[in-house]
This record gives sequence, structure tokens and C-alpha cells, in this order.
Amino acid sequence: MSELRWNPMLGEWVTTATHRQDRTYKPPAEFCPICPTAPGAFPTEIPVPDFDIAVFQNKFPSLRPHPDAPEVAESALYPVRTAQGECEVVVYTADHHTGLANVSERKMRTLVDVWVDRFVELGARDYVKYVFIFENRGEAVGVTLHHPHGQIYAYPFIPPTPARELKQAEQHRQKTGRCLFCDILLEEQKDGRRIIAADEHMMTFVPFFARFPYEVHIYPRRHVGTIADLDEAERSALACSIQTLVRRYDALFDKPMPYMMAMHQRPTDGGTYEHFHYHIEFLPLARTATKLKYLAGSESGAGAFITDMSAEKQAADLKEVTF
Amino acid sequence: MSELRWNPMLGEWVTTATHRQDRTYKPPAEFCPICPTAPGAFPTEIPVPDFDIAVFQNKFPSLRPHPDAPEVAESALYPVRTAQGECEVVVYTADHHTGLANVSERKMRTLVDVWVDRFVELGARDYVKYVFIFENRGEAVGVTLHHPHGQIYAYPFIPPTPARELKQAEQHRQKTGRCLFCDILLEEQKDGRRIIAADEHMMTFVPFFARFPYEVHIYPRRHVGTIADLDEAERSALACSIQTLVRRYDALFDKPMPYMMAMHQRPTDGGTYEHFHYHIEFLPLARTATKLKYLAGSESGAGAFITDMSAEKQAADLKEVTF
Repeated sequence: MSELRWNPMLGEWVTTATHRQDRTYKPPAEFCPICPTAPGAFPTEIPVPDFDIAVFQNKFPSLRPHPDAPEVAESALYPVRTAQGECEVVVYTADHHTGLANVSERKMRTLVDVWVDRFVELGARDYVKYVFIFENRGEAVGVTLHHPHGQIYAYPFIPPTPARELKQAEQHRQKTGRCLFCDILLEEQKDGRRIIAADEHMMTFVPFFARFPYEVHIYPRRHVGTIADLDEAERSALACSIQTLVRRYDALFDKPMPYMMAMHQRPTDGGTYEHFHYHIEFLPLARTATKLKYLAGSESGAGAFITDMSAEKQAADLKEVTF
Repeated sequence: MSELRWNPMLGEWVTTATHRQDRTYKPPAEFCPICPTAPGAFPTEIPVPDFDIAVFQNKFPSLRPHPDAPEVAESALYPVRTAQGECEVVVYTADHHTGLANVSERKMRTLVDVWVDRFVELGARDYVKYVFIFENRGEAVGVTLHHPHGQIYAYPFIPPTPARELKQAEQHRQKTGRCLFCDILLEEQKDGRRIIAADEHMMTFVPFFARFPYEVHIYPRRHVGTIADLDEAERSALACSIQTLVRRYDALFDKPMPYMMAMHQRPTDGGTYEHFHYHIEFLPLARTATKLKYLAGSESGAGAFITDMSAEKQAADLKEVTF
């Protein structure tokens, strides 16, 4: 059973998805459910012997296009809604033992097109208000399947973090008449110390206000709202920016960096959201080769983030690494 | 160096505390820095051979009463402030190998008085806008010192999560004329299934809208704003409620439950905040005996929480456990 329950204390929806408790948990590589199905071998979720990039519905979805009606009763204080939406898995490659750092340039570019395709298709559904493209990578992030893959959640609401960004961007526009994210680009460029890579289309930088260790944002220079608004050259620049960043991450501690990748776009609820600017946030969890950042009391209980490194130091480390 | 940097994208302060990167990390028990100092042995942070409960300033504080001026330059887009505040450690007992579940009833009651004392004293300082009493417990939460202890952060701002609760509570009062938290108490009582324990002063329950596995809230029945407003009988009831809950947690999987404990109170910035209602939130991280909940892409990147168990099931498990 799954449903959305309203959290009146924080003003947000919580998704209950009880069928997920028993989902596939760290299977050995030979039983990977998202490898291609080898001839004669046990059938995986991908019934072909090879593929380039595969997208399909998550077998244990939190949100579904045709969900059952909630079993729990609602009240004025505790509204309940059906958990209608989509949860897709994007398998980056048929090779179990690789990752974004090592796939071909062509594949990385194709992945951007796949994201565009899924954003447009999912965003067009009337019950989808927000398409969230993301990746969880590494056991430290809780990844249960090690085959290189990302995910897409199409929510029936605007999730809290993008909602806060939208509100801040709206306030900034009211105050200054300008785009908050364009202003951040200008400010970062003026300082320069936190920029890791830049070309005419994309800028990769540790923002002044980073909350996670080695947090990096990738912004298109042009003011666009979604990945679908990027032109061909920008899509290629995005693919290259992502892959180069992951290579830097993996070189930093000479092992795969655990991270979350989060793509923030305009909602797909029918509003225009002219003031929002498409971008990607990489949120790593390793603060040294052996120490992780935990979202403990101050972060999880009070929402107040504390970082152990200045954004300038983080950017210097990532800039100087040989990869 | 430490400072507060403004995150214009989310509208919150981020604390940079670079001197914390090398803080004491999982020392062996015989080098525990918060054990009492044994005669003739190496000196710990507590220079006495025994104590009941000890409170002192964190040796690696994120916030300090007399911080240095920030080294980083600010701008209109990126304001900077000094990281002025307090970080205290509350050592619950001289015994390295125990915990709140096993301390005496008298000590548990004294701990509540210690929290009251610290709340009042820290809250009275003009630079302290919010006193956050909390505990991180277990390696899964990132605890680096295993000696039973809690912490207090006295922030120079109202942190994001309490700020959201304050806003929701204010909106609820404007709409209904009533306290949001008193209404939650009524609603939980009407349903009954999620209540784990209750007496005339305190109610312990899994809220309908729980976000963490086995998340439990403890509310005083009376509408009070801070721990200092509790009378003697309520303080005893609070001590008993906390200890009983931790015993349930530890019995659930027959091992210490990793959790964060977060106390939410009225700010100490001079406002009255009549609409806010003191309470404690326990946020555990274990969803089964062997599986942890991770704050991954959906939670950390979008702020959208997904739970694997209904609140009713969580409450039933905690109610039925023998301890």
C-alpha cells in the first residue's frame, strides 16, 4: 500500500510505500536485476542480451500511475492523497562494473537525450507536477544495487527543496528584477576561486554557500528552465561537464566518491516559473578519504548545516586533482 | 576559522567551521576524552575522578561566544556573519558503557533539570536566538564518541526546521484560532492506534505523518513553549517518557537503536511565539534489525521523504515490544 500523508507540522507530503520494505537489497553481482539477461541465464528486469541505456518502471515504486486508493482515513488536520506518479530506473550501461566516469563520450551525450526524453514525457502527464532526475551512488548513500544507474521520480506535488528554491528565486526577482541563479553565476565568476571548470555553455563550481562536502553545482550560462530547453551544443557541454566532474570526484580520494546527483528544473504543473534556472547539484558524502559527512542532529533535527571545509578549499582540491 | 554564510538559494545560514575537520574521531574506550580523569591517568576533558552529569563547551565548537571575524568577504548576494553562539556537551554519566535506557530514574530526572538550566542560561544571552538540545546516538548517525552524551547548540538564528514548524503553527492559529500541536494531540488521541504511552502529563506517539522509521514524538499535554515552562510533575513525566522510549527502541532489535533526539522549543530572540508548543522528536535510522534508512536523493536532493512502514505499524511494533 502506498499513499501521501500530509505533515501539518512541516507543511509537506510524506510518501508511505510499505511494499518497499522488502525490496532487493545488495544482491551479489551475478544476481544483479538490472544487468542484461544473458542467453540461458536467469531473467533480469531487462529481457535482452545487451542495450545502450535502458529506462523502465521501478519494480518497487513509491509512486505509481495507477495507485490503489489509500486505506488510511483522512481528516481536516491530516489530509491523505493517492501516491500517483512515476518512478523510473535509468540504467546507464549494460556493463555492471563501470560508471559515468568511464562510459564513452557518445553514451554520456545519449544519456542527456534520455533525460530530456523522460522529462518531456513524464512532465506532460496531468498528475505529474515535478520531474526529479537524480542519482544515488555508493553504499554510503544507501545504494542497494551497484550497477550504474540513476532514477527519476515524477511527483504529484512540488517537493520541499525545489519549492524553497522557487520561493527564494521569486523573492530575488521581486527585489532586484533579476534571476537569482544568473546572479550567482556572475558572483562566482567575479570571485573566481570556486570555479572548477567553465566553457561558453556551462559553469561547474563549488557554490559559496555549499552545505555538503565537495558540493558542486553545474549551471548553464543561458537562462533556461529545464533540460529540454538546452540546445544541442549545451547538451554536449552538460554531458562533458558531468563526466569531467565525476572523474575529478573519483580521483580525489582514488576511489568512487559516494554522492547524490539532483537535477532541479521548473515544475510541470502548468505554471511558467520564468524566474527559475535549470541546474544540477552534486551532493557528495565523503569529507576525507576515510570520513563521511553525516546529516545528524543539527542537519536532520534543526535543518542547520555545518561544513568542515571552506568552499574555496573544496574547489581548490577538486581543481588541482589529476585525473 | 568559522563563519556563517548565507545560502541565497535556500534562504538559510550555513556554518563553516574548518577547525572541526580534525576533531577526535572514534577513540578507543581507554582514551575517551569525556570519561572522568582517573587518578594518575591521562587527563580527559573532565578533570575530576567522578561526576553525576557534566556540561562543558565543545572542544571543537561550530559556534563560539567570542568568534574571530570572518576572513571571507561578503557581498549583497552572499552575506556573511560571525559564527557567534555556543556548543555545549552534556555528558549523561561517568560510566562509559551505559546509556539513557539504563541510568537511574533519579539521574534521568536530574538530566531534565540540567536541560532546563542550560536552556535558561544560554537563551538569556543576547546573541542566542535559538537553543537546540539534541542527542546523536550510534555510529550510523556518525557519532565519533561513544560515551553517553548529548549536545546543545545555541544558534544566532532560528534554524530552518524549527522555523518551518513556527510558520506552520502560526498559519494554523490564524486559520483555526487553535494550537497546531494541541490539535495533533487531540487527533492522535481520537485515533489512538499510534499512541505508545501516555499519562496525565505527556503523550508518546508515532505521528500520522512520521518521516523517519520508528519516529516518535513526545508532547506535553499542557500548552507550554519551552522545557523551562514544565512544572515538577511534568518534568518527572518527561524523564520517564524519554527513558521508557529508549528502552523500547533498544528492545525492538535487541541492540542500541541509532537515533537523533531533537528538542523543539520557542526561540529565545525576544519574540513570544505563543502559538508554539514544546516537544521532543526522536528520529531513528534503523528500519529493520539490519537495514538503515538513508536520506538519499529524494530526501536530500528534493526534500521529499518516503517511508517504508505505515505509522500505525511502527507504533504497534514499539507498543508490543517486551522491555
